[in-house]
Amino acid sequence: MWAARGLSRALRACCTSAPCPKPARLPRVSVRDALVSQEPGENVKVQGWVRSVRSQKEVLFLHINDGSSLEHLQIVADPTLHGSNLTFGCSVEVQGVLVKSPYKKQNVELKADRIEVIGHCDSKTFPFKYKERYPLEYTRQYPHFRCRTNALGSILRVRSEATDAIHSFFKANGYIHIHTPVITSNDCEGAGELFQVEPSSNMKKLGKNFFDVPAFLTVSAQLHLEVMSGAFTHVFTFGPTFRAENSQSRRHLAEFYMVEAEISFVENLQDIMQVMETLFKTTTETVLSNCSEDVELLHKFVAPGQKDKLEQMLKNKFLIISYTEAIDILKKGSQNFTFTPKWGLDLQTEHEKYLVKYCGNIPVFVINYPFDLKPFYMRDNEDEPQHTVAAVDLLVPGVGELFGGSLREERFHLLQQRLASPQIKTHHVSLSLLSLRSLML
Amino acid sequence: MWAARGLSRALRACCTSAPCPKPARLPRVSVRDALVSQEPGENVKVQGWVRSVRSQKEVLFLHINDGSSLEHLQIVADPTLHGSNLTFGCSVEVQGVLVKSPYKKQNVELKADRIEVIGHCDSKTFPFKYKERYPLEYTRQYPHFRCRTNALGSILRVRSEATDAIHSFFKANGYIHIHTPVITSNDCEGAGELFQVEPSSNMKKLGKNFFDVPAFLTVSAQLHLEVMSGAFTHVFTFGPTFRAENSQSRRHLAEFYMVEAEISFVENLQDIMQVMETLFKTTTETVLSNCSEDVELLHKFVAPGQKDKLEQMLKNKFLIISYTEAIDILKKGSQNFTFTPKWGLDLQTEHEKYLVKYCGNIPVFVINYPFDLKPFYMRDNEDEPQHTVAAVDLLVPGVGELFGGSLREERFHLLQQRLASPQIKTHHVSLSLLSLRSLML
Repeated sequence: MWAARGLSRALRACCTSAPCPKPARLPRVSVRDALVSQEPGENVKVQGWVRSVRSQKEVLFLHINDGSSLEHLQIVADPTLHGSNLTFGCSVEVQGVLVKSPYKKQNVELKADRIEVIGHCDSKTFPFKYKERYPLEYTRQYPHFRCRTNALGSILRVRSEATDAIHSFFKANGYIHIHTPVITSNDCEGAGELFQVEPSSNMKKLGKNFFDVPAFLTVSAQLHLEVMSGAFTHVFTFGPTFRAENSQSRRHLAEFYMVEAEISFVENLQDIMQVMETLFKTTTETVLSNCSEDVELLHKFVAPGQKDKLEQMLKNKFLIISYTEAIDILKKGSQNFTFTPKWGLDLQTEHEKYLVKYCGNIPVFVINYPFDLKPFYMRDNEDEPQHTVAAVDLLVPGVGELFGGSLREERFHLLQQRLASPQIKTHHVSLSLLSLRSLML
Repeated sequence: MWAARGLSRALRACCTSAPCPKPARLPRVSVRDALVSQEPGENVKVQGWVRSVRSQKEVLFLHINDGSSLEHLQIVADPTLHGSNLTFGCSVEVQGVLVKSPYKKQNVELKADRIEVIGHCDSKTFPFKYKERYPLEYTRQYPHFRCRTNALGSILRVRSEATDAIHSFFKANGYIHIHTPVITSNDCEGAGELFQVEPSSNMKKLGKNFFDVPAFLTVSAQLHLEVMSGAFTHVFTFGPTFRAENSQSRRHLAEFYMVEAEISFVENLQDIMQVMETLFKTTTETVLSNCSEDVELLHKFVAPGQKDKLEQMLKNKFLIISYTEAIDILKKGSQNFTFTPKWGLDLQTEHEKYLVKYCGNIPVFVINYPFDLKPFYMRDNEDEPQHTVAAVDLLVPGVGELFGGSLREERFHLLQQRLASPQIKTHHVSLSLLSLRSLML
């Protein structure tokens, strides 16, 4: 949400353009593919941005990055190919032959016979310098360039890979993907934190609604997916979700992406927990294996030790404790909590952290929460005197609650009783009452 | 965007619930998998909704659907298993053995030894009857049930499959997926048709903005992707897009999904057209092959002949004509157009239809549009006197324009000239000026 006007000014300041390159129809390879090439000797072209220029008497070394991997491709060329425009930050097309590299750090390098500068870069005004490291606060000033930094490049590659892994997981398990609506007239989770939507020309006309009724940005796809789960046994969505919370914390965003799924014919929390655990592990394994260098970088500079922690989580079966056991553990704990743990009250962040640590820093499912803490649509365990519902939260080291879900109450007489109860919050009454037990991740 | 309150009322009217089923840990198979099972003799359970009940003296026949396929699974059982709750529309779990079917219409059927009704359905109040066909206007009254109809089930399966094919296409071709923001402060395409966003509590407070500046729902991810294409050579997004157009036509929606991609280092329109053609063909082939029955149904009842038309499109290389050629074809055409074709004016829907028909009802790329018709950021072909830019639209039979794209102008002096021109529309000035030629699908 940066200003595009500022962006164009900044680009004008430091980028000029080169003439149109001559047609050259060699096969293009990405840096990622070139680095693992099994066919040295191949004539190819590589396109990307220059990360370093080292001109020696006998040889010119370049490092090229094209965003396909964290690692650069080394270009080796005759120093006569070093034109004055070939600077750090410029964009180039390099043609040549992929050869086995004599250097230990890489398998393959490109012996160039042609280097063409496509977009010039004036190193004087370019805000990033060779080999410098910049704090995120600095890079944030250059939204049009910051995705070229190692840290943001890695984060975006990991996000893309994780997104794909999530889609693949659901596809492989027979889920139908549903594009649930973003603009909606329902308020799934509660009042007071919704974004409302009107055409900009309508904003000042009180009482006039484009959609006849007030329309909001979705806070959850649950209602729509529940309806779909009355026709497809397995459905999911992975879309944007919105909260108008005026909070500057790390845990709140106005716009974020959420995976939601509903399964019909679910018989117990075990079924739900299995989906959660497999989704977590499959996605994490895919990212660790397909973005290993990106993970190493983040492990080294951004979240030290995170990779080992993840591998620890993958190796172990996740633990399951009941809410009641969790409260007992907290009560017996040596730690002085700001919020005293008590049966019937929500678990606070400090409690979640303690529980995860207590369980050996692996993810923990907490199940069977107090009836009065949870929305009316969660399935009553009917386990007096400690009266609970079949809800589950997955607590993950370093994150806290990652997944939440429940069995839905399908017994009509129990739903009727709860709806008639004076304690029920009115904003929950508009939820759908599917007669099948199903799941929300 | 139906009212959830109406939904819950409707559900109360026709669904009651059965007691919790006993735990049974047979492997669940989907109807889709059961129908192609290569292991008859397997003991399985199937869950879904009853589409027909035929009780004969010796044998009870059921058809079960679970949304995984258009085709139902036939259940064969002893008539003693026919409880009074086993009616059209109820949900059931059936256990038994998959066997080779003696009937020609299917390969496999399920010999049931246990049928359990999970959710009852009162056929008197249930709005759909066995074997009846309903117009879409009727089913629209029952948003919580209509996805159980064949037509909507097929459409949703096709959409899910197409979505997945699009993601897979880009992944396989090395594109990084970017979740571009939905809430944005920029207006990419033009003024007057944006949705504005504020917390509902702010709506009446004039001049107060949650994000400090007015915020809108995105009309295109182009600006954000262009920035990303300065670090990753291939990026794409596939997200919701919004237009506050007060139009009731079939061609306008307030909310829709759009695929957008940007490629750096693109040298000519040919590169862009190849991506468009391959994306179209790959996605269509995947849908035709993975949803063949759904396509047959739609072919038969919704869009007669559509499957043959699609196969025709897949077999042929798409045609390419220039805008100038298109105008010549239209001028020589025998048809009386409402809008007289003239060089320099936009192609109207009637013109697009004529061109597609003229070209033999296969998709046609129209390239090189008049300079003055297109936004300032499209690359000048510098081909006086018929002055054009390197833009392309793909016209598809029955649809009209399906893809649009262009080379971006990378020559700084030309951009400066155009920005200084008094004709330029001010809302285009805030676009980013990347120095690399790239593509928008």
